[in-house]
Amino acid sequence: MSDSIIQKAKNAKAATRELVKLNTDKKNFALECIAKQLDKNRLLIKERNKLDIAYATEKGMSTALIDRLKLTDARIDGMIKVLHDVITLKDPVGEITGMNTLPNGLKVGQMRMPLGVIGIIFESRPNVCIEVASLTIKSANGVVLKGGSDAINSNICITNLIKSGLKDAGLPENAVEIVESTDRESVKELLKLKDYIDVIIPRGGLNLIRFVEENSVIPVIRHDQGICHTYIDEFANKEMAVSIAYNAKVQRPGVCNSMETLLVHEKIAKEILPMLKSEYDKANVEIRGCDKTCTLLPGIKKATSEDWDTEYLDLILSIKTVSSIDEAIDHINTHSSHHSDAIVSENYTMGMKFINEVDSAACYINASTRFTDGNEFGLGAEMGISNQKLHVRGPMGLRELTSSKYIIFGNGQIRN
Amino acid sequence: MSDSIIQKAKNAKAATRELVKLNTDKKNFALECIAKQLDKNRLLIKERNKLDIAYATEKGMSTALIDRLKLTDARIDGMIKVLHDVITLKDPVGEITGMNTLPNGLKVGQMRMPLGVIGIIFESRPNVCIEVASLTIKSANGVVLKGGSDAINSNICITNLIKSGLKDAGLPENAVEIVESTDRESVKELLKLKDYIDVIIPRGGLNLIRFVEENSVIPVIRHDQGICHTYIDEFANKEMAVSIAYNAKVQRPGVCNSMETLLVHEKIAKEILPMLKSEYDKANVEIRGCDKTCTLLPGIKKATSEDWDTEYLDLILSIKTVSSIDEAIDHINTHSSHHSDAIVSENYTMGMKFINEVDSAACYINASTRFTDGNEFGLGAEMGISNQKLHVRGPMGLRELTSSKYIIFGNGQIRN
Repeated sequence: MSDSIIQKAKNAKAATRELVKLNTDKKNFALECIAKQLDKNRLLIKERNKLDIAYATEKGMSTALIDRLKLTDARIDGMIKVLHDVITLKDPVGEITGMNTLPNGLKVGQMRMPLGVIGIIFESRPNVCIEVASLTIKSANGVVLKGGSDAINSNICITNLIKSGLKDAGLPENAVEIVESTDRESVKELLKLKDYIDVIIPRGGLNLIRFVEENSVIPVIRHDQGICHTYIDEFANKEMAVSIAYNAKVQRPGVCNSMETLLVHEKIAKEILPMLKSEYDKANVEIRGCDKTCTLLPGIKKATSEDWDTEYLDLILSIKTVSSIDEAIDHINTHSSHHSDAIVSENYTMGMKFINEVDSAACYINASTRFTDGNEFGLGAEMGISNQKLHVRGPMGLRELTSSKYIIFGNGQIRN
Repeated sequence: MSDSIIQKAKNAKAATRELVKLNTDKKNFALECIAKQLDKNRLLIKERNKLDIAYATEKGMSTALIDRLKLTDARIDGMIKVLHDVITLKDPVGEITGMNTLPNGLKVGQMRMPLGVIGIIFESRPNVCIEVASLTIKSANGVVLKGGSDAINSNICITNLIKSGLKDAGLPENAVEIVESTDRESVKELLKLKDYIDVIIPRGGLNLIRFVEENSVIPVIRHDQGICHTYIDEFANKEMAVSIAYNAKVQRPGVCNSMETLLVHEKIAKEILPMLKSEYDKANVEIRGCDKTCTLLPGIKKATSEDWDTEYLDLILSIKTVSSIDEAIDHINTHSSHHSDAIVSENYTMGMKFINEVDSAACYINASTRFTDGNEFGLGAEMGISNQKLHVRGPMGLRELTSSKYIIFGNGQIRN
């Protein structure tokens, strides 16, 4: 088994040397061929998917999770759409910027190049294979997919169709590889292959992220929690504040850009907290408050210190009353997962202070945190949302699958 | 000891919250205050430095290494010059790019922000403290310095003067911290402090780099080897080729951007190899060749397979004759440390092919690889030269000590 993972990583690395020679038309043609493979093999995909569904049902998995696994014709249409969407995106490879002529006549600039081979470790939904492969192919990267056991039959089937599409287009099939074993040991092996894999992207729960951080000798781009905040400033428009705070919590509580903690300036708390509660009550949101909040909203549950560091992903909200914007920013910089945080305020100085000082991948003034997403930001499809500071913060799209090398045009320069 | 390392990392993290509020004038003033502290404490610096020199002499360290350790008035002038140079650099913090208005009215752009706290692990020269701190202060980052045992007294003295300068300017002294213990265990501790340190930069030999990669749970920017190549194409200007190949090997063989392997197209080899050898002989360069090269240059040593992966950092050169540019690019992409590689050719297609396909941080046409350097490229001072692909390839300057977060200006937008 071990040999096969190394071999797949080697294959992907070898494929990147061919990919980097291709122009955008050829890469787009390959994405079109993959779309055709999906379209003409709908029956096969659904059959293979049934094996995963049967196993999940047998294991007693919840209907919600089984639903996420299921590949219907509508979801296959969705995957085909992703491929067509990525075809329309601007190819970042080869973009040259900052070309300057130095005093000695050397022309020095930077050119965008693929990262190389991406190792991505993900859980659940099998359509991730298409989302990831469409981006890696377009950016001339190789990829080694490592999905969870729940979707293994679907993942292998889709990967084989991707390979067929690559072959149809005359591209190296090995540009997309999949690890077929589903245990943690195979993840561990993957994390040691620094000679063949350039970047590891773990998408999943905190346990997976920690395991990857502790075991990887390859650079990692973390995609983990979203503990997002909304701060209602004393100078907020109250109706807007209620609308934004309601949307950020309730519209889709199970995703990473939804709000977990609401901060309210004490000067506005007495008036706005009851307005908020009457809205949240309609959606059955459980509120957990700090001492002051409990005084203003009698009957709610008291928040513990753990609450401030919890990603509920559910209709639960912790609320803290603060005495200044500095206290709010300090709370956010301490407890946020540095994902998405918002201020609601009509005051210019407060808004700019928040934007400048909050250390998160997305800092909002007067909008719901729910917009943090590659598609919403106009980047197109995304590999995930990065929680770290190196290379990329927030949505990781096509462009972030490249980095810049220096190119230097000389006419015989030597160093003195 | 353990508590003190954690405490220092915590202190640096806390200081970053203050640094990010400062405008460029205030940060430049602090650099000026540090320059004054160095200038008025020359005697103290030289006295402390003498302790390191005495210990090094006692240990029997080579005179060359002792010379690198030594802090003279000229070297103190050099450190003061670094501070003044960094004052003149453009502050990257707060730069906003790509601000677009989305169909829903949200204005989305990206703003450059400090990375946070940098942990830098370095060996030898004590002036590194000033080079690093000047860049981290100007970019509003905190830093935890971890130098080698050889320069520990000098490093601590310089760091204390940096802290005095920060204090003089009213900035938090804890923005620059130094780990005073010099063992590997303290490095190991540092590599676990992911709650306080955002990026680790190891500068040193391969052993240090491997140790850091294997033990760090914090993202690492590697600064390691330079196995650099020059490829003399069949269409090269021969005089230019000899001049560049000579400069890349001989001008300063002990640094990472010097050439270790020369590749020569077989169609030009017979003519150019004797020209090269007669030049290299004057500088006592030892040549190790592949079979073909040995036939063309009788009497030279035969290269082993190890030679192609060796960073000599010395007057030794391996030479391989290749039958095509593809063979040259393939050799480079397999054996290069992805640092700096050059082609010498008058042919447009060959030059562009080399630039597009070679996977190295700096790709040259018709110039010596010796130019890969932050100062030479016009970036000013540098933290080092990155050998990895994430975030930064090649010289890491002031700008690369920042990354971009998204900023979003709304007027009440919520997600449907």
